[in-house]
Amino acid sequence: MFTGLSAFPLTPFRDSTVDEQTYAHLIGRLVVAGVDSITALGSTGSYMYLDREERRRIAAAAVRSAGDVPVMVGIGALRTSQVQRLAEDAQQAGASAVILAPVTYQALTPDEVFGLFEDVTAALSVPLVVYDNPGTTHVTFTDDLYERIAALPHVASIKIPGVPPVADAAADRVRTIRDRLPASVSIGVSGDAVAATGLGAGCDLWYSVIGGTLPTLALGITRAALAGDHTAATAESERLTPLWRLFREFGSIRVTAAIAEHLGLVPPDSLPRPVRGLDSDGRARVAQIVEALRFSD
Amino acid sequence: MFTGLSAFPLTPFRDSTVDEQTYAHLIGRLVVAGVDSITALGSTGSYMYLDREERRRIAAAAVRSAGDVPVMVGIGALRTSQVQRLAEDAQQAGASAVILAPVTYQALTPDEVFGLFEDVTAALSVPLVVYDNPGTTHVTFTDDLYERIAALPHVASIKIPGVPPVADAAADRVRTIRDRLPASVSIGVSGDAVAATGLGAGCDLWYSVIGGTLPTLALGITRAALAGDHTAATAESERLTPLWRLFREFGSIRVTAAIAEHLGLVPPDSLPRPVRGLDSDGRARVAQIVEALRFSD
Repeated sequence: MFTGLSAFPLTPFRDSTVDEQTYAHLIGRLVVAGVDSITALGSTGSYMYLDREERRRIAAAAVRSAGDVPVMVGIGALRTSQVQRLAEDAQQAGASAVILAPVTYQALTPDEVFGLFEDVTAALSVPLVVYDNPGTTHVTFTDDLYERIAALPHVASIKIPGVPPVADAAADRVRTIRDRLPASVSIGVSGDAVAATGLGAGCDLWYSVIGGTLPTLALGITRAALAGDHTAATAESERLTPLWRLFREFGSIRVTAAIAEHLGLVPPDSLPRPVRGLDSDGRARVAQIVEALRFSD
Repeated sequence: MFTGLSAFPLTPFRDSTVDEQTYAHLIGRLVVAGVDSITALGSTGSYMYLDREERRRIAAAAVRSAGDVPVMVGIGALRTSQVQRLAEDAQQAGASAVILAPVTYQALTPDEVFGLFEDVTAALSVPLVVYDNPGTTHVTFTDDLYERIAALPHVASIKIPGVPPVADAAADRVRTIRDRLPASVSIGVSGDAVAATGLGAGCDLWYSVIGGTLPTLALGITRAALAGDHTAATAESERLTPLWRLFREFGSIRVTAAIAEHLGLVPPDSLPRPVRGLDSDGRARVAQIVEALRFSD
C-alpha cells in the first residue's frame, strides 16, 4: 500500500454541508484511473473542518467507493482523546491505514508530539502514517523525532513535507532520513512541485494533492519516476510549472478546488468557510492553465 | 464591561474530562476577588480542545457562578458554521459578550479573516471581542484589518497581542490603533508581561492570563495603572519578572496550570493532552517562584 501514488481527494461542500454523492464520484474516478491508494480526509480533504459524524460518513463513503484500492483516513485533531476516537471510527469504517498530523493550537514540544503518537499507536490495529505538514500544523519535525516516532508500533510510513529541488541534494536528504528509520517504514514525498524529484531521490511513494483531482496526470509522473525514467518524470513535472506557481501563490487546496470546479467535478464554492475559493481573476488564470496544459482527466 | 481586568480562568481537566465542579470554584474566586469581567474559554481555558457540548457546559457554569460579573465566552473554531453555532450556544448560556480568534488550519487571507467576522457578527445579539492571538492562530492582523473588522456591527473591543515594552513606543502604538477604530471600540492589552505598560499607554483593559488564577495580584497592577500610578503598576510587574520569564520559556498556559496545581486550585495533570504540564524540574522552579513572590490568592 505504501508505494506509488496515494491520491488526496477534495471533500466537496455544497451549501456549507459535505456533498457525499459528489465525493463518491471523485473516489470512483480515482479507482478507474488506477491510483495505488486513496488518502481520504487529508489536508486537501479539509479534515480539520469536519465534525466527527461528517468524518465518519466520508471515511465510510471512501471505503465503499474504493473497491480494492486501499484507503487511508486522516485522524488528526487537537486533543488526543479526539484522535483516539477518530482512529476507532476510521478502523470501523474499514480504513486500511490511518494518517496523523500533530495539529496544534498551543505550540507543542517534541516530547508532547511524541506523546501524541505514543498514545494513539498504543490502541491501533492498522498501520499509521506520520503526516509531517509544517505549513498547517506549525510543528517542525527533527530527524530525531522521526526516529523516535518511527520506532513506535504500527508506524508504517512518513509523509515528508518535500525535498530540496536539486536531485543530488534530494537524494542526500532521503538517504539521511532513511538511515534513521526501520526498514519497514516507507518514505512518501509531498509538495507536488517536488514530487518527481522526491521519487527520483528514492522516496517510495507520492502523497499527492493534484493526484486526488487529476489522477492520470499524477500517475504519469509516478510511473515514469518509479520505472527509473527520471527524464520523463521531470519533464512532465516541469511542464506543470505554471500550476506549481499557482499552488505557491494561492495554496494548493484553493487551486485544486478551482480546477475541480472548472472541470465540473465539484459544485461551485466547494471549500468550507472561512476558506474561500479564488476570486474571478484567480479563476481565470486557473482556467487558462487548465486549457493550455490540457487537463481533463 | 470593557474596562479594568478581564480574567481568563483555566478549564481544569481530571482524567481527560472537564472538571466542572473545580471550574465553578475557580470562577467563584474571581468574583470574590472583584475582577471586572471573566473570559471563559479563552486560550488559557483550552477552548479549542473542548467539543461543543463541553463548551456549552463550561459557558453555563461560568455564567451561573459569576453572579453579576459579566462573562465573555470564546467561540473560536476552524469552520464558520461551527463558530456560528458556538455563538448561539454562548448567547443561550447567558454570555454578556463573545470573543473570537480566527483560528486556522489552512492559512487564511485577510479577506477570509474579514469574511469570518462578517459572517459571525451578522447574526449576533451581544458584543464581540476580536481576539488577536498570532501565537496560536498564526494570523497577522494589520491595522487595516483591525479597521475593517472594527467597523462591523457588534464589535466592541480588540484584544491586541501586546505593546512595545518601552512606555513612549507603547503609547504611540496604542494611539495608532485607536486612530483606526470607532470611539466605541475598546482596546485591551494581552501578553501579561507588558500589561502594566499597555494600561499605562492607554489600553482600556487587560485580558489577563494570570488574572484568571491569581486575580488579586493582577487587580493590584490594573487598579494602580488605571488610577494613573504607573510607578506602582510597573514596580509590581517588574517584581514578577521571574514569572514572565517562565511564561516565555514554557508558554503561559503550562506555567499557570503548574501554579494552580501547586496551590491546590486544580487537580494534577490538569491540561488536555497532547499538551502536558511541566516536568518535575519546571515544577520545582514554579514552586520556588510561588514561594519567593508569595503568591497565594
